[in-house]
Amino acid sequence: MDERIHEHAEVLVDWSARVEAGDDVVLSVAEGAHDLTVAVAEKLGERGANPLVTYDSDEVSRAYLTAYDGEFGTGEHELAMIENADVYLRLGGGRNTSALADVSGEVRQAYATASAELREARMKTDWVSTVHPTRSLAQQAGMAYEEYRDFAYDAILRDWESLADEMAEMKNVLDSGSEVRIEKEKTDLTMSIEGRTAVNSAASVAYDSHNLPSGEVFTAPHATEGEVLFDVPMTVNGKRLRDVSLTFEGGEVVDFSAGVNEDELETILDTDDGARRLGELGIGMNRGIDRFTDNILFDEKMGDTIHLALGRAYDACLPEGEEGNGSAVHVDLITDMSEGRMEVDGEVVQRNGVFDWEEGFEG
Amino acid sequence: MDERIHEHAEVLVDWSARVEAGDDVVLSVAEGAHDLTVAVAEKLGERGANPLVTYDSDEVSRAYLTAYDGEFGTGEHELAMIENADVYLRLGGGRNTSALADVSGEVRQAYATASAELREARMKTDWVSTVHPTRSLAQQAGMAYEEYRDFAYDAILRDWESLADEMAEMKNVLDSGSEVRIEKEKTDLTMSIEGRTAVNSAASVAYDSHNLPSGEVFTAPHATEGEVLFDVPMTVNGKRLRDVSLTFEGGEVVDFSAGVNEDELETILDTDDGARRLGELGIGMNRGIDRFTDNILFDEKMGDTIHLALGRAYDACLPEGEEGNGSAVHVDLITDMSEGRMEVDGEVVQRNGVFDWEEGFEG
Repeated sequence: MDERIHEHAEVLVDWSARVEAGDDVVLSVAEGAHDLTVAVAEKLGERGANPLVTYDSDEVSRAYLTAYDGEFGTGEHELAMIENADVYLRLGGGRNTSALADVSGEVRQAYATASAELREARMKTDWVSTVHPTRSLAQQAGMAYEEYRDFAYDAILRDWESLADEMAEMKNVLDSGSEVRIEKEKTDLTMSIEGRTAVNSAASVAYDSHNLPSGEVFTAPHATEGEVLFDVPMTVNGKRLRDVSLTFEGGEVVDFSAGVNEDELETILDTDDGARRLGELGIGMNRGIDRFTDNILFDEKMGDTIHLALGRAYDACLPEGEEGNGSAVHVDLITDMSEGRMEVDGEVVQRNGVFDWEEGFEG
Repeated sequence: MDERIHEHAEVLVDWSARVEAGDDVVLSVAEGAHDLTVAVAEKLGERGANPLVTYDSDEVSRAYLTAYDGEFGTGEHELAMIENADVYLRLGGGRNTSALADVSGEVRQAYATASAELREARMKTDWVSTVHPTRSLAQQAGMAYEEYRDFAYDAILRDWESLADEMAEMKNVLDSGSEVRIEKEKTDLTMSIEGRTAVNSAASVAYDSHNLPSGEVFTAPHATEGEVLFDVPMTVNGKRLRDVSLTFEGGEVVDFSAGVNEDELETILDTDDGARRLGELGIGMNRGIDRFTDNILFDEKMGDTIHLALGRAYDACLPEGEEGNGSAVHVDLITDMSEGRMEVDGEVVQRNGVFDWEEGFEG
């Protein structure tokens, strides 16, 4: 087995999930994640934890969802399992990213609604999502398998402690700032971050961060004004979105366009009131990610990028007791900042992909 | 997908487990059972049940067991899952029947002991064990893959209702009888079945039967006397046993021998007091099984065979309140009855593999 699989397992168990002896751990594994599952099971054995492995197969889900006729229920056995778990690790990496392509949107939506209680329970555990690099994900990225594995492990096997220190600088800037401005071609956007708290997303539950890889600092903006072009293509709900442009007035999208699949963008914006407002401003700072691979887990963390999400805001960014933007959706859209700049309260913090604390930054 | 996989799923869900709308179902699937899992998920969708799929991988277990150092615990998440399940379906069929070969006996034993509570909880559900025919099982049987699939589906896709009717005759004979005698080459064994109740094991929870395939009638004998030769080879704890011979006096083994691995036989007999007494007499009646494949799930159900188990007796065979033979082991040993006879209270019930209610029986 590739030694990096063992290193991945160690980062996941020790740095990300902070597993301790006696922890009850759910390992939810996709069809292609067998080797990582074996490596994680070994680590959990060494740590003295109790693993239970569930098989999260898209093909099995498709068979179930397409055969079901009626109202979906919640399995009490699944709820009880999650409620009694300390840690929930999702090991993605299937064999076909289109395996659910012929399940209708209504059926998916109905199942997602019926599963809300399970989702809420998972969020109460120390949960972490990661992926095992599979041929299917390599194909999605347009890359050879070996090439993709190198890419994925460069992103995952970082010096997380040192990246966390660097990201702490960005968190300080955002926590003490009031207004963010983003300027680049076809983009001039301002938003308020007054009173909001940024998350230093360092791929560990100890940092309120639940993705591996991570490497972004995010907060919950409001009162957005201006226009923004998202020039990084994204696949959302199986549809490719490209060159999405949004115009905001009073915090709300008042005009939009997309290079392809504009109707899918319209469907998202029409989901509910919150879908027309921003729930997240995220600044990608993982320089191990050096290209777009059409996988949000990696793309949004890439250095030299900023992403904004339409829809639901994260509680961790909001003052105690304050409700953030609420919505059934949370759709991330990414803009390339390698030519552009971000200002906080009039001070340039990032110019052409370089931060003001880095060498090469032109003040 | 082979149409027989869908038929297997239907027999499992409808005939064996009697799944109903709203049932919470655990599907515990081995590494090679993906296709059967998809087919079962479809059936569970049609029936309106709630499936939760667990990944029962020997390679994952090996990694965990060999890395663990200390006393095994019980996962509260796993226990809660099982206690909240109505149905527990085990879909066997791995990729290597020797995947656990280098896990020491002590570690396995320690884990099995720590898992007793989980096992007890599973027994309280409507549980069924079956296997998906894999290349690994074909290899264990010494058969080509296609050949093995034909074999497995011949055993599984029976007319179970009609076999249940035939087995009811055998159950009547045993329930009303007092003494069983088995005679063949190097075999003359008598045992009492007075006051015991036979199980018509028709591959359905409705018959107290939890294997698919099944097709045997079994009871709990006692007061065994005489000698018996088990001429069907068996793999027990990874060791091949061949030509096991046992001599009983007063219900207990007083002499034994084996053609190979006699020390393994001795280890079994020395486990505890109950390991030297019989816990089961089973009569194989599944004529879809026409050869030995070194897999107890199939071998013990084969027509023209009788098996006896050293160790634990099943409660279902005992009068209310009576304790049967107790032991940590239950090791089935099989004898070929195609040349031999079985008598109940002096009446010949089976001769050279033919039952007295069948055509060709010589009275």
